[in-house]
Amino acid sequence: MNSAQKLEFSENTKLLIIHADDAGLTHSENMATIQSLEKGIVNSYSIMVPCPWYYEMAVFAKNNPQFDYGIHLTLTCEWENYKFGPVLPVSEVPSLVDENGHFYKKREQLRKNASAEDVKNELQAQIEKAIKFGLKPTHIDSHMYSVGTSSEFFEVYRDLGEKYNLPVLINEQLMKMVGLNPELNIKEGDFLIDRTYVAEFNFDTGKLGDYYSWILENLTSGLNLILIHPAFDDNEMKGVTMNHPNFGSKWRQIDFDFFTNEENKTKLKENNIELVTWNDIKNRKIKVTNTGNNK
Amino acid sequence: MNSAQKLEFSENTKLLIIHADDAGLTHSENMATIQSLEKGIVNSYSIMVPCPWYYEMAVFAKNNPQFDYGIHLTLTCEWENYKFGPVLPVSEVPSLVDENGHFYKKREQLRKNASAEDVKNELQAQIEKAIKFGLKPTHIDSHMYSVGTSSEFFEVYRDLGEKYNLPVLINEQLMKMVGLNPELNIKEGDFLIDRTYVAEFNFDTGKLGDYYSWILENLTSGLNLILIHPAFDDNEMKGVTMNHPNFGSKWRQIDFDFFTNEENKTKLKENNIELVTWNDIKNRKIKVTNTGNNK
Repeated sequence: MNSAQKLEFSENTKLLIIHADDAGLTHSENMATIQSLEKGIVNSYSIMVPCPWYYEMAVFAKNNPQFDYGIHLTLTCEWENYKFGPVLPVSEVPSLVDENGHFYKKREQLRKNASAEDVKNELQAQIEKAIKFGLKPTHIDSHMYSVGTSSEFFEVYRDLGEKYNLPVLINEQLMKMVGLNPELNIKEGDFLIDRTYVAEFNFDTGKLGDYYSWILENLTSGLNLILIHPAFDDNEMKGVTMNHPNFGSKWRQIDFDFFTNEENKTKLKENNIELVTWNDIKNRKIKVTNTGNNK
Repeated sequence: MNSAQKLEFSENTKLLIIHADDAGLTHSENMATIQSLEKGIVNSYSIMVPCPWYYEMAVFAKNNPQFDYGIHLTLTCEWENYKFGPVLPVSEVPSLVDENGHFYKKREQLRKNASAEDVKNELQAQIEKAIKFGLKPTHIDSHMYSVGTSSEFFEVYRDLGEKYNLPVLINEQLMKMVGLNPELNIKEGDFLIDRTYVAEFNFDTGKLGDYYSWILENLTSGLNLILIHPAFDDNEMKGVTMNHPNFGSKWRQIDFDFFTNEENKTKLKENNIELVTWNDIKNRKIKVTNTGNNK
């Protein structure tokens, strides 16, 4: 039974979330995300609470509850010149930061150095900060899926979903991508995204747009998720993503262009794709649970 | 006796510091500041330690000790969508922040709410953070000259200069600009900048460049300081300075253009202006003190 069926859609339904990660990272990312929601086919996004442009995005989210948004739980900062760290004082979560008080660049550093206790406290503080500001997130997910760097962190992540009654992005491909064994770490009762698409190797070859077209034209039934990172290839994003062509400013511009392009919008209908939000999922899950159909 | 004479320059010497404030604020500000130093006639700058792009600028400063730089002590964040707060945990300096943990937008809010103790701890933490990173600042000054919002804060500011053995920007015009009485707040032994120029009212009328030309052509003898804010009128700066035309992105672009323009460079020689850095001032002061000429 695929996850669409678990939500009482028919077996052949091709459900899709087109999700913009990294809102709050920069002004560029914010503006592109907003335009992708308003003019494009992006239908959900998530916000990085520890980032410098969080406030701008949080104000937008609060004023625009018609758009589905979650918290993009953040434990890493992969950029060379642009740095941020925990929302908690570094003295309270010392295992999460480097000598300058910034998040580590790589998942591997996080895995080696971080304590589950600090991970828990920091991620909870990020959610609490958003809620205190008046946000009503529809889900939680994880920047660079770094919660998957250890089983312990992954449990913290799942528990936060339970604590705040929020759907949690759990997906086998993402777990494998970060080296977490799905067999050992998926529990009974976890709600899974059937297939997640992240363009990992399609940028250098100039095939990023082709890859997105391919996904839409070949989507299979069940619950699907495309993770993108819309932003503009402008001075700010060039500065942020310096020496990081993967998920760099040109890549993000292509993400923006593809998912706001009129021609690509028609691909949804042509391929019988039904967009679904995390909020839809949450409500369906509640309904299924209440009617006792949650087998 | 003017301050040039106190530094043992001749009575008629027209000394000038062309100083870029706000380095660290944004990537745009950093890039424009660096180009103004490398290609323009800007000869000193100061860095805002609590700002999101501090790290990029700090790395540049450390690697380029040939350029004179100070710490732009920061207690306010005047922008609408772009927010930052203290380097200390907000729980340690609660009187400096609004309900979201950000610095106040206006000097008046700072004056009303802040305790001198919190001001002292935060400003000291900013200097300590810079020093710990390996920076060797040549001076301290103050963002929006907000240290001048009360006599108590001003004493903290002066004391920090003494503690770290750094020249402190003290100037009558700036004090008056923020409502601090120079007669009551300048002490014997304070080293004063004779005249400071900040373009407060010349942007709306389209006369900003003319004003800078006028300054160079009419400079009088003594120690003069022009405070500018070079940045680019790009997406990032437009986002930061939204609804804030004063010191906005267009204004900052003019600052950049004027002080990197070849024609304007020649105005220095034509008008017998001698550029001087804060480091020069520091060394002269030490020399004068040691030779007992510091009357």
